[in-house]
Parts: sequence; C-alpha cells; structure tokens
Amino acid sequence: MPPMKWWGWGEEGISFTHEDKPDLGPFIERVLGLRVGPPAAAPPRLEDLTVPGPELPASLREALERAAGPEAVSLEVLDRVVHGRGKSLRDLIRQRRGDFGRLPDAVVRPADERAVAAVVRAAVEADAVVIPFGGGSSISGSLEAAGDERRPVISLDVTRLDRVLAIDEASRLARVQAGVFGPSLERQLGDRGWTLGHFPDSFNHSTLGGWIATRSSGMQSDRYGDICDLTRGLRVIGPSGTLVVRPVPAASNGPSIREMVLGSEGRLGVVTEATLQVRRIPEQRLILGYLFPEFAAGIEAVREIAESECSVSVTRVSDAPETRFSFATRRDPTLVDRLKSRALRVFLERRMSFDTGRMALSFIGFEGSRAHVAAQRRAVGSIVRRRGGLCIGAGPGELYDQKKFDTPYIRDFLLDRGVAGDVSETATVWSRLMPLYDAVTAAGHEAFAAAGVRGYLMCHLSHSYHAGACLYFTFALRPPPGGDLLAPYELVKSAIQQAFVDNDATLSHHHAVGTEHAPWLEQDITAPGVAMLRGLFEGADPGRNMNPGKIV
Amino acid sequence: MPPMKWWGWGEEGISFTHEDKPDLGPFIERVLGLRVGPPAAAPPRLEDLTVPGPELPASLREALERAAGPEAVSLEVLDRVVHGRGKSLRDLIRQRRGDFGRLPDAVVRPADERAVAAVVRAAVEADAVVIPFGGGSSISGSLEAAGDERRPVISLDVTRLDRVLAIDEASRLARVQAGVFGPSLERQLGDRGWTLGHFPDSFNHSTLGGWIATRSSGMQSDRYGDICDLTRGLRVIGPSGTLVVRPVPAASNGPSIREMVLGSEGRLGVVTEATLQVRRIPEQRLILGYLFPEFAAGIEAVREIAESECSVSVTRVSDAPETRFSFATRRDPTLVDRLKSRALRVFLERRMSFDTGRMALSFIGFEGSRAHVAAQRRAVGSIVRRRGGLCIGAGPGELYDQKKFDTPYIRDFLLDRGVAGDVSETATVWSRLMPLYDAVTAAGHEAFAAAGVRGYLMCHLSHSYHAGACLYFTFALRPPPGGDLLAPYELVKSAIQQAFVDNDATLSHHHAVGTEHAPWLEQDITAPGVAMLRGLFEGADPGRNMNPGKIV
Repeated sequence: MPPMKWWGWGEEGISFTHEDKPDLGPFIERVLGLRVGPPAAAPPRLEDLTVPGPELPASLREALERAAGPEAVSLEVLDRVVHGRGKSLRDLIRQRRGDFGRLPDAVVRPADERAVAAVVRAAVEADAVVIPFGGGSSISGSLEAAGDERRPVISLDVTRLDRVLAIDEASRLARVQAGVFGPSLERQLGDRGWTLGHFPDSFNHSTLGGWIATRSSGMQSDRYGDICDLTRGLRVIGPSGTLVVRPVPAASNGPSIREMVLGSEGRLGVVTEATLQVRRIPEQRLILGYLFPEFAAGIEAVREIAESECSVSVTRVSDAPETRFSFATRRDPTLVDRLKSRALRVFLERRMSFDTGRMALSFIGFEGSRAHVAAQRRAVGSIVRRRGGLCIGAGPGELYDQKKFDTPYIRDFLLDRGVAGDVSETATVWSRLMPLYDAVTAAGHEAFAAAGVRGYLMCHLSHSYHAGACLYFTFALRPPPGGDLLAPYELVKSAIQQAFVDNDATLSHHHAVGTEHAPWLEQDITAPGVAMLRGLFEGADPGRNMNPGKIV
Repeated sequence: MPPMKWWGWGEEGISFTHEDKPDLGPFIERVLGLRVGPPAAAPPRLEDLTVPGPELPASLREALERAAGPEAVSLEVLDRVVHGRGKSLRDLIRQRRGDFGRLPDAVVRPADERAVAAVVRAAVEADAVVIPFGGGSSISGSLEAAGDERRPVISLDVTRLDRVLAIDEASRLARVQAGVFGPSLERQLGDRGWTLGHFPDSFNHSTLGGWIATRSSGMQSDRYGDICDLTRGLRVIGPSGTLVVRPVPAASNGPSIREMVLGSEGRLGVVTEATLQVRRIPEQRLILGYLFPEFAAGIEAVREIAESECSVSVTRVSDAPETRFSFATRRDPTLVDRLKSRALRVFLERRMSFDTGRMALSFIGFEGSRAHVAAQRRAVGSIVRRRGGLCIGAGPGELYDQKKFDTPYIRDFLLDRGVAGDVSETATVWSRLMPLYDAVTAAGHEAFAAAGVRGYLMCHLSHSYHAGACLYFTFALRPPPGGDLLAPYELVKSAIQQAFVDNDATLSHHHAVGTEHAPWLEQDITAPGVAMLRGLFEGADPGRNMNPGKIV
C-alpha cells in the first residue's frame, strides 16, 4: 500500500467530485450558500513549504539500523511528513498550511516482530519516543508527538507486518500480523473461505493494529461484533518485553489485559499480532433499503429488531437532513427515477402519510444461508411495517455498500472550497438516543450561529446493541469569505463533544481519544477512571517512551 | 439472607445426602474405596475453638460508627469468622480445624452507597484495610486478609444494598445495588417481567458485586453472556472517590475502565451499583438431554452448534466419568427405569453402537418464543444426529436444572467422610479442548499416584463461545485413613492448574484469581501483563488499602 496523501485522505489521484451527482451542487448551494465550482486552489506542493529537519543522534540512528536493517530507517522529508500526524480535520487544515507540528525524527519500518522488539529496545535505551503507525488514518490526534517533545521521536511503521500467519479452522481463529491493511487482510482470509467481517469506513487505509489501538467498529458490527469482540489473542512489544494475551474465548484472570490493549493507542506498546475470530464467508449478503416517516420511527424499529429473535448484520437509519443529503449524492438513475416517480411520491405522501422532507432512509443488512436471510428479512419486514416504514429494495443498499469507503474523501473536496466538514460520533442507551440527538442538534446549530458560519448538521444511527446504539453526526460549516476555518470548526466540534458527555453518552463510540477528545475524558470516565489509566500506563511504560500524551 | 455456615457451604440445616440416591454409595465405594456411612464426626462447634480477638483502634471504631451507624459495626465472633474468608476447599478444611487465619477486626454493614463511601474514607484515613464482602462464596481466596497484615482489617459487607433501583424498559437495562443475592435479584426483576439470566452454581449464596468482582459466568451464558457482557454501567467507591462507568452499549474512550473493574476483586474499590442488561422472561425455557457415544463427539457437536445459525442458551457435555457420576446421583425413578430398561440399553449398544461405559451425557438449553425454540431444537437435533448422538428428552434436563445449586454441598458431605472434593475450571479454543482434556486428566491421575491417594477426576464442557469453551473439572481424593487431606489436595489442585497454563488455557474461566490461583498469573498473562495490573492497582489505590495481596 502506498501511504496516503500527505495533505489529505486516500490515494493520490482519487478524489470526490460533485460532477457525476446532478443534485449535489444545488444541495450544497442551498444549505451552505456555496456555488460549487472547481477547487479554489491547487493542492499544496511539499517543495513550496518549509519542513523542519530531523534531529536524530547518530548513535540512535546506528542502533535503529542495527535493530531493523539500514533500509528500514528513513529520514526522508515525505516519510516524516506523512508519519507526523493522522487525518483529523485539524490535521488536514494544518498540513495544507505547512504547519507540520513536531515531526518524527525518523520513520522505521521493521520487517518482523523481532525487529520491532529490537527497535523498541533501542529507542527506550536512548530515551526516545516511539509512536506506532499503521495506516495513519486516526482522526483523533493519536499519532502526533507533543509540540514540546525534546527527546528523539521515532514513528514505528508496522505495515511490513502484513500477513495472515495461520488459520485455526476448528476454532475459527486467524493469527494475523498487525500491520495488514483491510483489503489485504480480507483477500488473504477470503482466499481460504473466511472473513473477519470488520469494515470501518477507513477500511482501505487502516490496519488491524490501528483498529485494535482505537477500539474500531465496522459496518457489519451487529453480526460480527466490534474489534473488541473479534480480538481474542494479542502480542504487544513494550518497554519491558513482550506482552502475550492468550487467545482464549473468555477468562477470569483478573481485570482483562486484552481489554486494556484495546484502545490503548500505543501507550502500552506496539501491537504486532492478534488472534482474531473469523467466520466462513456467508452464502448470501444482502443490504436492503427502507424508508421511515421520520428518524424516531426508524430508531424505534431498530430498537425492536435488537430485542427480537432476528439477527441482522447492519442497522443504519439516517435523520431527515442526512436522508436529503443521501438523495442529493445519488448517481444511480434507477433510484433517481424511482424516487422521482410521481407514483412513489404519491404513494409515500398519500398512502403512507409521509412528509418527504422529514422521512428517514435506513439500511438493514442480512447475512447467512439463503433460508436464514429470507427468514430474517421477513421478520424485520414486519417490524418495519409496524413502525410505518416500507422496504425500497436492494438497490440503495448496494449503492451505499459500494460508496461507503469514499466518504472520507468529501472532507478534502469541501476544504478545497473553503468549507470544513467533519464527523463526531458517540453511543448511548436506547431511551436516551432521541434526547441526545435533540441536544446535539441544538448545540451544533447554536455553535454555527455563535461562530457566524453557515452550517449543516446531519446524523445517522448505526451499530446497534442490546442496550443502545451509536449516533454518528456529520457536519459542515462555511465561514464568510476570507474567514478562518479552524476557529469556527473547533467551536462547533467542541459544542458537539460537550453535548455528548452532557447527555449520558460517551466521548466516542469508535474513534478513540487521542489528543482531540482528551478534554472530555475525565467528564466521561470520572477522575478515578483517569487515575486508573495513568497508573496502568505508568506500570507498562515508566519512562513514558510509548506515545506519551495520548488519551490522558 | 442469613450468612452461610461458618464451616461449610450454604444454609444451616441443609446438606447433601446419599440416602435418597440408591446408586451413589456403591459408586463412591467403587471409585474411592470408601464405604459411605454417617459422618465420621459432628460439625465443629465454634465455642470449642479459639478465635483471636479483634484489634480495632477505638478512634477507628468511632469513625466507622459515625460513617455507617453504630448498628452497622460488628465485632461479634461469628460475624468475624464468617467474614474471614470464602469457601474454597482449603478454607473449609482450615475452618473445620479452627485455623482461622487473619480475621477481620470488624465487620461493617453500611446501608447505602453514601455510608459505603464514608466507611471507605474512614478506613483509608486510618490506614486500615478494606475487604469488600458479598455472599462470601469465593473459592479462590479473594476474601482473606494476609496472615501478616498489621493494619486494622475491615470486612465491608455490602448485602444491605440489595435493591433493584430502576428498570429502563426501553433500553432493557436495570440499575441494581451490588449487594443483592441471586434469588432476590431475579425475584425483583421477575415481578416486572424481566430476567438477568445469570445463574452461576453459587446463585443462592452469591451477590451481584461478587459476580462482577470475579468475572462470573452463569449456566445460560450462551444466550445471556457472562457477567462481563451483562454489566454496562458501574459505580465503585475507591480511595480517591466514586468511579462512575457510564452505561453505554460500547465506547472508544481508551482502555475499558468497565473491564478493569470486572475481575478486580475489590482492589480498585467497592462496587456499589451496576447497570445490567436484562431481558423479557421468555415464553418458553427448555433444557433437553442428549447422549453421545463419547465426549469428543459431544464436543464436536457443540462446536458445530456454536458456528451454526441456531441460538441456544445452555451447552453442556460431560465426559464418561462425569456421566457415570451423574447416573449414580439420580433420584428420579422414571429416568432410572428408562436407563435401566433393557430396551434402551439394547438400542444404545446394538443400534447406536454405544459403549455405555464411554458415553457422554449432554444438556442443551433453548429459550424464546415457542416457534423459535421449536426451530432451534430441530436444527440442533440434526447436528447431534450427525455426531452420532440422540435426544433423551426433557426429564434429565429438568432434573439437572433443579439440583444444580446443590452441587457445592457435596464438598462438605465428602469432607465429613475424610474425602477432599473440589473443582478447577478453565477455557481454551476449540482445537485445543481435547488435547487440554487429555493433558489435565493425565496430570490429575499422576498427582493422585504421587500423593498416594485414591482419586476420581471428571469433566464437562460448558459455556460455549465462537472460538472455544470452558472445561470444568471436578475431582475427589481420599488419603489413607488418618492421612493429611490438605497436602495431597494441594498437590492435585496444583497439577491441574499447571496443566491448564501449560496447554494454552487460562488459569480460570469464571472463578477468579484471588490468592489460590495467583501462582499461575504470570504464566497466564506474562510479566508485562502483571506489571500493567500492578500499575493499575497502584493508580487507583496508592496506599494499598483495598483488599491488598489479591490477584498480584
């Protein structure tokens, strides 16, 4: 895998465009007052910017080269810039400005676990800082060294550890190296008939180790579980040696070490390998589209599905603003035709009593044998009908499934045109979802007003559980021409995060803490929880060499 | 709830007997060489034994009385003896001998969370040790103060905190105080149509807080999950204040604080409240009995069920020795008749090619709507048949369900007759279950020989997961008349535990670490894991006031 663009999301040469989406330009003009044309400026060129040089002691450089081989140690400008931080909106804005922060002094790419251990040992002996790096897709500030870090900083890129080592077919477990990217992992598993079933939006550009380090969640989590559920065994290289978490299905051996590594963002060491639950590729995969008269009805239906005896793989319901956005981004003429058809509109408005401006688009996924899928589909259908919804077939679901990994490119498309677009997501219990939704929506719009920007805020429910679900908010804001982007963005982002913790929700459902969500940590887990984390990190890493300053 | 017997399991006046089980006496004589008669001696009388007096500074006593009320502070002999330790076999043997160890200096029973906090504050200010106490059913040594503890020791009995505070019906969550015993919890929930579905063998004599502190697992865990899955929110009183874990369905807010409290055995503080996933009481509950030609075939069937699209509530398969024991303890004449019937024996041996000495008894449970139960039962039936098994109906399952909470009484019955009986359980992945079983069986029998005792060892699989299951070993040993019980018991117990960690399994699946399993902790979680736990406990409790010496 080539690294992502140093200034934006994804691969060079790939970008989001409005040109093949006839309704998107008018939509953006309507909600943000922006007439969408070509980018205001070309992407920045690295050679036009000043990149601070590395400061790596010669002795440490030699030690790293001995540890991982000379070819594995890079001080190249582009390597250091790409490895300097992740892809949060704040990161993208600063990269474009040439504000690179505290860049790593070296990027090291060990070939195997033994070399990872030798690199960590050499770095700790030299009192250097080690920041593990996988796909670099963090949007929470988990990858950037502290601005005032005076020790040498090593970005430890694990992406050469990219193989499925073994599949235990009887136990349905795969031993996998942590640096593997999503597509390669699914290809290696799929060649033998298996799947992990973990498909976060970052899938193409994120690694197993990153998913573990951030407690990631994938689209089909209703069926497969989150990465926390999928991960059974672990190998982690830390300052005091190799932590091994045995791959057992459950254990009562004290507080769960496994769950301490999950979400640890490199603070306990470098994840080199995991033993993961895998499943046979199902006979059938199906995502169906549904329409509900309003967001709350869709949420009620999903809540009921989660309690019922049916099993589904995906549950997703968009609020009215997101539903309108989804329809504005459609390319599929069949769907356009269908939705535009006078017959459907009449049916929705007259027969179903829908207000088409308030309706909520939903996707529900099914996997398994054909008989199983058919049975689940029938059971879900009757719950949906009780909530006033209707099935609109497999077309919209297929479309959603195809384009979901492209979503992160939209932020660059907007930034090119002076608009900040970003996401914030959380989770709470079923009874608090609508109050949370109302509170966050109000907080977001108040923040737009306070910042003096045009803004748009939309939301979907995804990832259902017994007790509740994730609410995923997407927002865009456009300052007056010439106005600063970062300050109003931070005002809005902070208002939304604050509304989460003020309304019985967590600071993040699957995007981790890093530095960007750290201001809300104590409000989320209380002061004794923070003290526990501090003690844990201190116990594993008394010298504060492993990605210090993240989480707490 | 009255406290359990100070010298044994369960309620005064209730005990296990062989008299209503016509085949049990002959069975015990055959396998242990013991002719079962009345107890060798009457239960010990506390007044015949010397109980060390409490050493509680007057100032601390006053502070505790101010904190919880004078009536809540007890220095009574029986209170202190009952609260001095749990019910491990080592505990029972020592209690009967009048070897009480380091008894608590006071037992404090606060009425509410505010009083718990005041007690913890007073104790920490006086540098006393606080050991939280629920049902006192620990069999891993989690409740006894260190023999050389010189600070005052307070047993903090939380059983007055025994109410279901609220049920959030939309979210299917109940807020419950941690001191509630199993039967009271299910009664309070059941009155409103709900169930937690958590039924460990200790159910009648253990509390919610104890389940959480030890990562407990209940019989229907295949459906409801373990206590780790059921527990969403937590309130924990520690030295630095109140830790609150928000009841959210999932979170990405750093290493899971929730999972640190689960299994913490009081080292992080006193659990006062939890928010638990509950479910509607199902329309139908059914446990069916099955017979397999041998243990391995039963395991294969359960492994296949865990991968299939059917959902079950209980999976349990006994090995041949446990199957023989089960048949020897039966009271039910219908079953006796049936199993003794020439027709069944001929059928099993001729038509099914069973060796009835090797066959494996299995229970599989189903819950839900009648239609759902019927469908699952059919699907399971066809898997069972493919593995050469057959269904023997609901009778044996009902019997098992009725008597399962009586099992712990057997240890006292055996101790009364000079026999040590105990359990050790673990978990590993499917592919390693049979090698583990063989290794533990060999290690147990070698240890019987080395200790010079007659011994019996039996096993069942229970608690199935995607990746593996629990193996639960029960063993009994009889030294020559007049020989010591404790030394050979410890030899056998140690051999079994060592075989667990030597064969890719964990030191315990659901009985915690305490002091009795602590020797195997580092072999299980490796040295860096131990360092993480030490750091965690140090962070939460720098003065080592909260149940010090447990786990690490």
